Amino acid sequence: MGKNLTTRSEDYSKWYNELVVKADLAENSGVRGCMVIKPYGYAIWEKMQAALDKMFKDTGHQNAYFPIFIPKSYLSKEASHVEGFAKECAVVTHYRLKNAEDGSGIVVDPEARLEEELIVRPTSETIIWDTYRRWIQSYRDLPLLINQWANVVRWEMRTRLFLRTAEFLWQEGHTAHATEAEAIAEAETILDVYATFAEEHMAVPVIKGTKTAGERFAGAVETYCIEALMQDGKALQAGTSHFLGQNFAKAFDVKFDNTEGQQEYVWATSWGVSTRLMGALIMTHSDDNGLVLPPKLAPIQVVIVPIYRGQEQLEAISAVVNPLAARLRDRGISVKYDDRDTHKPGFKFNEYELKGVPVRLGVGPRDLANGTFEVARRDTLEKQVVPAEGIEEYIGNLLGEMQDAIYQRAKDFRDAGITEVDTYEEFREVIATTGGFVSAHWDGTDETEERIKEETKATIRCIPLDPKPDPGNCIRTGKPSPYRVLFAKAY
Amino acid sequence: MGKNLTTRSEDYSKWYNELVVKADLAENSGVRGCMVIKPYGYAIWEKMQAALDKMFKDTGHQNAYFPIFIPKSYLSKEASHVEGFAKECAVVTHYRLKNAEDGSGIVVDPEARLEEELIVRPTSETIIWDTYRRWIQSYRDLPLLINQWANVVRWEMRTRLFLRTAEFLWQEGHTAHATEAEAIAEAETILDVYATFAEEHMAVPVIKGTKTAGERFAGAVETYCIEALMQDGKALQAGTSHFLGQNFAKAFDVKFDNTEGQQEYVWATSWGVSTRLMGALIMTHSDDNGLVLPPKLAPIQVVIVPIYRGQEQLEAISAVVNPLAARLRDRGISVKYDDRDTHKPGFKFNEYELKGVPVRLGVGPRDLANGTFEVARRDTLEKQVVPAEGIEEYIGNLLGEMQDAIYQRAKDFRDAGITEVDTYEEFREVIATTGGFVSAHWDGTDETEERIKEETKATIRCIPLDPKPDPGNCIRTGKPSPYRVLFAKAY
Repeated sequence: MGKNLTTRSEDYSKWYNELVVKADLAENSGVRGCMVIKPYGYAIWEKMQAALDKMFKDTGHQNAYFPIFIPKSYLSKEASHVEGFAKECAVVTHYRLKNAEDGSGIVVDPEARLEEELIVRPTSETIIWDTYRRWIQSYRDLPLLINQWANVVRWEMRTRLFLRTAEFLWQEGHTAHATEAEAIAEAETILDVYATFAEEHMAVPVIKGTKTAGERFAGAVETYCIEALMQDGKALQAGTSHFLGQNFAKAFDVKFDNTEGQQEYVWATSWGVSTRLMGALIMTHSDDNGLVLPPKLAPIQVVIVPIYRGQEQLEAISAVVNPLAARLRDRGISVKYDDRDTHKPGFKFNEYELKGVPVRLGVGPRDLANGTFEVARRDTLEKQVVPAEGIEEYIGNLLGEMQDAIYQRAKDFRDAGITEVDTYEEFREVIATTGGFVSAHWDGTDETEERIKEETKATIRCIPLDPKPDPGNCIRTGKPSPYRVLFAKAY
Repeated sequence: MGKNLTTRSEDYSKWYNELVVKADLAENSGVRGCMVIKPYGYAIWEKMQAALDKMFKDTGHQNAYFPIFIPKSYLSKEASHVEGFAKECAVVTHYRLKNAEDGSGIVVDPEARLEEELIVRPTSETIIWDTYRRWIQSYRDLPLLINQWANVVRWEMRTRLFLRTAEFLWQEGHTAHATEAEAIAEAETILDVYATFAEEHMAVPVIKGTKTAGERFAGAVETYCIEALMQDGKALQAGTSHFLGQNFAKAFDVKFDNTEGQQEYVWATSWGVSTRLMGALIMTHSDDNGLVLPPKLAPIQVVIVPIYRGQEQLEAISAVVNPLAARLRDRGISVKYDDRDTHKPGFKFNEYELKGVPVRLGVGPRDLANGTFEVARRDTLEKQVVPAEGIEEYIGNLLGEMQDAIYQRAKDFRDAGITEVDTYEEFREVIATTGGFVSAHWDGTDETEERIKEETKATIRCIPLDPKPDPGNCIRTGKPSPYRVLFAKAY
């Protein structure tokens, strides 16, 4: 009973697409570019949401909800913002359907045309700053620290489940501050929240940095990001936090009375992570047998599979397993006891490997007689026979160990995937072969960045935060460079 | 420092609109019919979501997520369904904006017209049943018990915050079953979940029943509902659960192999509650001083206001309050200590009354000396001086008492608001004056229901579940009727 999964070495991209579907995470829908997130995939997303939401609230943020529609005129108010999003907007033009007069079916009612077209939000800066104008009068109203969990739409032409979809789910934070320094500090605080979440919950090591001007969010003064490395050597941007300066405050005329009674424009940030994180999670840890999930995000942390012949053996096993499952749940561990009689143990073992359940307990008549369980861990596929006595504690510890081990393995891979190069020849060689992050000198210009991208498909993923001074020469132009930046091919 | 709130007796409708805005629950946005749910309002909605989500999961449901867009052809597949929703659809026709050639700004790109228009989901039966066709092959795949939390859009012409908005937030359950009986049982189970949630969490008493054919969901065989009574004597439908028969299975060709290996169409339910519940919550309990919230849904359950002159007194008070707040939080009680020095105690008292915080503790130097707190409860506005010793337990008990008292008060009002009438004259009199639910005989025809509606604006809110046999004569036509139904004017 195989998993029929393409291996990573055969075709990494195909492996990913198959895994997402076979592990019941998501699938394409009948609507171009829009995915269905299946219950198992959504359960992982809910765990991500819960952890992030708590971190946002612990840092003083509140949730709210803003309209899904943005009047076209709002989107147009910040020049570089509309430039960035205009090409991928879903546009609502009518508000009614009707029966066709020739009886051919249901058609758009031409008389129900909107006076002004509405854009399905690709991001919410404009509708939110239009609202903030009403909410902010005085320094006493600041800071305003708001997040929303929402769906957004960007009309992508080439889509892939989780990584790039026309509709995706995300959170978007939008904050308003009295001073530039406070807004920058907020953008950096959130970057830390994202990095902590990625590393401690997703077990995905990330590099914190800032984007070059060419890669910045449309409307931002500075874009901070976390970048992760996938197993195929490509980078993935896992979250961004933007310092927006006063751009949106000026576009929407949002001023406040400062402590001296003078009017000033408000300073802003925005920041978001999305269901794209699911793609990062899957691609960082999984293997040719299927998904590997860090225990903190696994919807089922422990599955128990009985190995039996006949009802009597099953009952004897259940008499031991049911109380054990209850004791594990008391420790906050999520447990599934799969006593279906429609499938054989081997089938179940395969299914839970495919779905990345961290720990599998097997128990048959011999285990009962010996007072043991067979414990299999998903990350290493190791099996061990463990005494039933004290097994709850053993499993609790094992889940913690696995969380650390999965992170460490990803970190070792990532660390080994950073190559320092000093010549363009080496650069092209590394990018074209092993991939990974390439740490190299760059002259700081858009033109050189663009030329390197055209010639190698590699982009500057980030300028590491607080780069250590390391003067050198741009790999492409030879011009002086104060420190290295990280290049990679990216998702 | 008044609240400047219109009173209920002056103008109930205006009172509601003002209260929603002044208590920081929601406000209108720049997008016609779409609201902004403000942080305080959203915090209440989050509490509702958490309680409902747990109840759904405890009854075996899983969450998932389906696309926001529905191809026009999908919507058209179930005849009565499209009939019900076609008139209020937001329609996406284009996927790109561009710079106008005459430089006049940003316009819709006429070349980016979609081949098939997409509808922003008004409800998701069609996109979900298109998906279920791929998920369901055998009786082993059933039942399929799925819920999604989502935004939906219905292009309402006359909107009111929470009660009727073009975009609203809701959950929609969509289940698939092997038998008719099982699907009906599911629809009834969910009706019970909704009623339990309304009564035990929202403290809103509800009547369970079924809708008449004329009031059924578009595409349903039977619509179950819970109906509540607002303080102005109008009814509010607070949740619906639909038995859909095989209508959507047939429209989307969803069949399964039964245990005998024969193909059958799948049986369906769908069910939902929305941010409309916020309207029900506000209108059921609140008074002329502002919001009254049941403790289980209050974002802040206890607010502590220091009464002091000068920093020294404040520090002495804080030295007592901070550890008390910590002990209350240990008991799972949410506490805010409002030590802002920018506002006077009277201002704060008003603010928390307006926002419906259930319990307010006042503490000044005299309280410190006496070892007491002044405890004010929001529902009755009663104040009491309570010893500091054991105050945590006192407050814990008080919150429980208040939850019960608020429910009992609403239930007494609702019970007193049901009038039995036997003549059309009485009926018209009650509907036109006190309002409330009117229990009366009806001949069971659409025509009579419609005529009564035209003549009195009252509709049949529901046929109570398991109506007690009580033969009589229709108030309008005199024809025989087996039991009474409930009429009311409704939101």
